Amino acid sequence: MIVYGRNVAKEVLNNEKKIKEVFLQENFDDKEILSLLEKRKISAKVLNKKEIARFDKFSHQGIILDIEDFSYTDYEEFYDNPNAKLVILDHLEDPHNLGAIIRTAEAAGIDGIIIPKDRSVDVNSTVMKTSAGALENMRISKVTNLVSTIKDLKDNGFWIVGTAMEGDYDFKDIDYKGKVAVVIGNEGNGMSKVVRESCDYIAKIPMKGKINSLNASVAAGLMIYEMIRLD
Amino acid sequence: MIVYGRNVAKEVLNNEKKIKEVFLQENFDDKEILSLLEKRKISAKVLNKKEIARFDKFSHQGIILDIEDFSYTDYEEFYDNPNAKLVILDHLEDPHNLGAIIRTAEAAGIDGIIIPKDRSVDVNSTVMKTSAGALENMRISKVTNLVSTIKDLKDNGFWIVGTAMEGDYDFKDIDYKGKVAVVIGNEGNGMSKVVRESCDYIAKIPMKGKINSLNASVAAGLMIYEMIRLD
Repeated sequence: MIVYGRNVAKEVLNNEKKIKEVFLQENFDDKEILSLLEKRKISAKVLNKKEIARFDKFSHQGIILDIEDFSYTDYEEFYDNPNAKLVILDHLEDPHNLGAIIRTAEAAGIDGIIIPKDRSVDVNSTVMKTSAGALENMRISKVTNLVSTIKDLKDNGFWIVGTAMEGDYDFKDIDYKGKVAVVIGNEGNGMSKVVRESCDYIAKIPMKGKINSLNASVAAGLMIYEMIRLD
Repeated sequence: MIVYGRNVAKEVLNNEKKIKEVFLQENFDDKEILSLLEKRKISAKVLNKKEIARFDKFSHQGIILDIEDFSYTDYEEFYDNPNAKLVILDHLEDPHNLGAIIRTAEAAGIDGIIIPKDRSVDVNSTVMKTSAGALENMRISKVTNLVSTIKDLKDNGFWIVGTAMEGDYDFKDIDYKGKVAVVIGNEGNGMSKVVRESCDYIAKIPMKGKINSLNASVAAGLMIYEMIRLD
């Protein structure tokens, strides 16, 4: 996985994460990062301005790292905890939303996040940056089929709470005790029909305005904090 | 105010907002927008690829509009409502956060948002885009001095609830009845010392993780929905 930027570099270098290669722009002068590289005995390749130019769209701030890929978790690991709380993301697209949700989930003590393999944002450099360090402490599962994963979760004692504008229950009125997974839908289209039909409850967040839509990471934040409210 | 992109263009054209000038890239072919321009009898200036190139960093999608500036509200307008709920943003920097907060505030039925004049993100094209249409329905005040505005609000019956990692009260345990304004701090530094000292309560959102920080728009979402919980 290629990651960019000074904050992410510091996080990776401090976290003992396996680093394959580091590229620095010539005259790179961030003393903290240079001393971390020295401490880990990593000799970086220096790129001149022209060589680094094609990475400029990633706002790399003079440092690019090739690190080991994010290591995903098998969702069966979540079965054992009788009070497990999960977040399922039904084809989210925006890496800023995934990063912010990882950050909220980590802060709230959520056990894991489940994302689908295809047509979904994946853990990348932007996600890592937006998660502000939380990514390292969050277990994430990547699954082939959300509907069959939801079935497996139900067979292992989970209640599945979907979210939609026209949900049947106010999100404050649902019983989140025990094993629960909350589903957050795609930014534009919400949950898919098949996922929706797999849910035990569909929750709605009450809205009183004219426009009435929430950013996906804000909606996830409200659901996550409501789910742990009674803990 | 210069705004960019097709979604924002559609919103502006549908909203009867005053439009000073419209620029289209040659061969612009969004039929919905072209018919809206025709309906409002606006003749756009056509820019060739070279002329529009310096706007490319704004992801304009071929359309740039110069529209009337956002019209701010005087915060004294909020005094009359005995149940007024406000959000004060203490020097937020990220326009995506301001846009997402406007979106949440509109959905939750918040009466207004207060931002400081200097060293703060302002209503711009990105804010408009991120707010997903909510901006037009939200009253926003821009004030010279947050501390003196908070004093005025208190003198007119408002309770001021700040937010900080080390707040004194769980955000769920505060009484939000009556006139209340919640303060959200800067993304990196939180609330300033002087603003913090002006608050009646400092609320904390409980966190159980290792990293423990929330995106500003997620924290604002939690505070906003808690503030209206008892309505």
